[in-house]
Amino acid sequence: MKSTLYIMGAGPGDPDLISVKGARVLGTANVILYDALVSQDLLALAPPGCKRIFVGKRKGKKEYAQDEINRLLVWYARRFICVIRLKGGDPFVFGRGFEEQQYAADHGVHVEVIPGISSALAAPTLAGIPLTRRGVNESFWVVTGTVSTGELSRDIHQAVQSSATLIVLISHLREIMTIVTEVRGPREPVAIIEQASLAAQKVHLGVASDMFEKTVKTKVITPAVIVIGKVVACYENLNFSEAFQMIGDEQQDLIQEVR
Amino acid sequence: MKSTLYIMGAGPGDPDLISVKGARVLGTANVILYDALVSQDLLALAPPGCKRIFVGKRKGKKEYAQDEINRLLVWYARRFICVIRLKGGDPFVFGRGFEEQQYAADHGVHVEVIPGISSALAAPTLAGIPLTRRGVNESFWVVTGTVSTGELSRDIHQAVQSSATLIVLISHLREIMTIVTEVRGPREPVAIIEQASLAAQKVHLGVASDMFEKTVKTKVITPAVIVIGKVVACYENLNFSEAFQMIGDEQQDLIQEVR
Repeated sequence: MKSTLYIMGAGPGDPDLISVKGARVLGTANVILYDALVSQDLLALAPPGCKRIFVGKRKGKKEYAQDEINRLLVWYARRFICVIRLKGGDPFVFGRGFEEQQYAADHGVHVEVIPGISSALAAPTLAGIPLTRRGVNESFWVVTGTVSTGELSRDIHQAVQSSATLIVLISHLREIMTIVTEVRGPREPVAIIEQASLAAQKVHLGVASDMFEKTVKTKVITPAVIVIGKVVACYENLNFSEAFQMIGDEQQDLIQEVR
Repeated sequence: MKSTLYIMGAGPGDPDLISVKGARVLGTANVILYDALVSQDLLALAPPGCKRIFVGKRKGKKEYAQDEINRLLVWYARRFICVIRLKGGDPFVFGRGFEEQQYAADHGVHVEVIPGISSALAAPTLAGIPLTRRGVNESFWVVTGTVSTGELSRDIHQAVQSSATLIVLISHLREIMTIVTEVRGPREPVAIIEQASLAAQKVHLGVASDMFEKTVKTKVITPAVIVIGKVVACYENLNFSEAFQMIGDEQQDLIQEVR
């Protein structure tokens, strides 16, 4: 039998949001190398003898470097039939899935990709915020907050100049809000969605000028996604009761404007 | 029992890429209102008595207006326990899922969202093209080619000025390639991926200046996604044999540059 390395997305958090194909392949896994954002319920789909290896980030523990993970993937793929690299969301949305795929393929490993539902898209969707809306805008732009050097991505500066809905994997919130305030104005609607698709999912609403301050008061639990744009004002339309509590006067005015 | 309208994504094409939750809910459906891009295999998951209603676009047939679909959703949700609005990809990526959700909620229908894997992200991923790549760029921008008036989205003009990977749901190819050529240059790498995730998946490779001409020679079957950006040159790295046949000299040079 030919060995296969599956680079697989686990989806945004709810284990039921993995693909049917992903769940089926998990049921035949010999080895799973997984990240911090992967649900234990998904690991439980694998057979009892399966090796479950945590290679994610965990506070106070040594972190695996990308090189080490790459080498582990190849090492296991050479020794087992079904090896799975399981990552939260989609492995190709800032997940370095391609780097792993390329490294493994370069080392003669047969790789198959099983995409996942990206939190970047599912978080606003599940919160009741459309990615785009007819008459408001026609595109959305997904940016990683932090580049490999740890700095804020320069793409943010270009992105704010467009009418696109901006979706940013959370980091550098204060800096991003300052840039948004300067270019799109202090009243640009912003939502932060934490733990999307889980029972603990929570939506923080604000505008560019107050969002950072708000999150200092009510801490944001990661993983979280920042959504910036006029579409955020659509949120209230769906009548989520928590929304009303969080919406300030400015946001209320905005909703009237956008409606 | 409370009636629920599920607004559900079917994923990019392969029926196994629907979510576990989506497949389970399909198994209890009383009514499914589905689009042209939905696989028959998914409709077959529903119980024998389920009504399967096609509301998509089909050549030569009368097309349902969005208003009619909205009204149908509410009509069925008031009469049946489990009503599913099933759309290809993710219903919220230019799929008007939010409009349907909002209309139904405004009419007192309980709505639940089950996201799907968007073709916009899965098509490049499954073709071996990363959405972003460290050292190349840090964001991707998803644009609908056509706005409701039938014209090319103005966001294209802004998007080409960034370093983001552009992902465009196919339309207006000639016009888009002209804009890309003017701003990013004639040698900007472009891929068109048709029927992503299906056995018939095909990748057309080119550069901004020759892509339109190439597709005139070898017809592109929709649904298709256009991917524009330096990351397209990563494609060859994964050694897909078809790539070599399609890559021209210009593209080969580019791959050398990007590597």
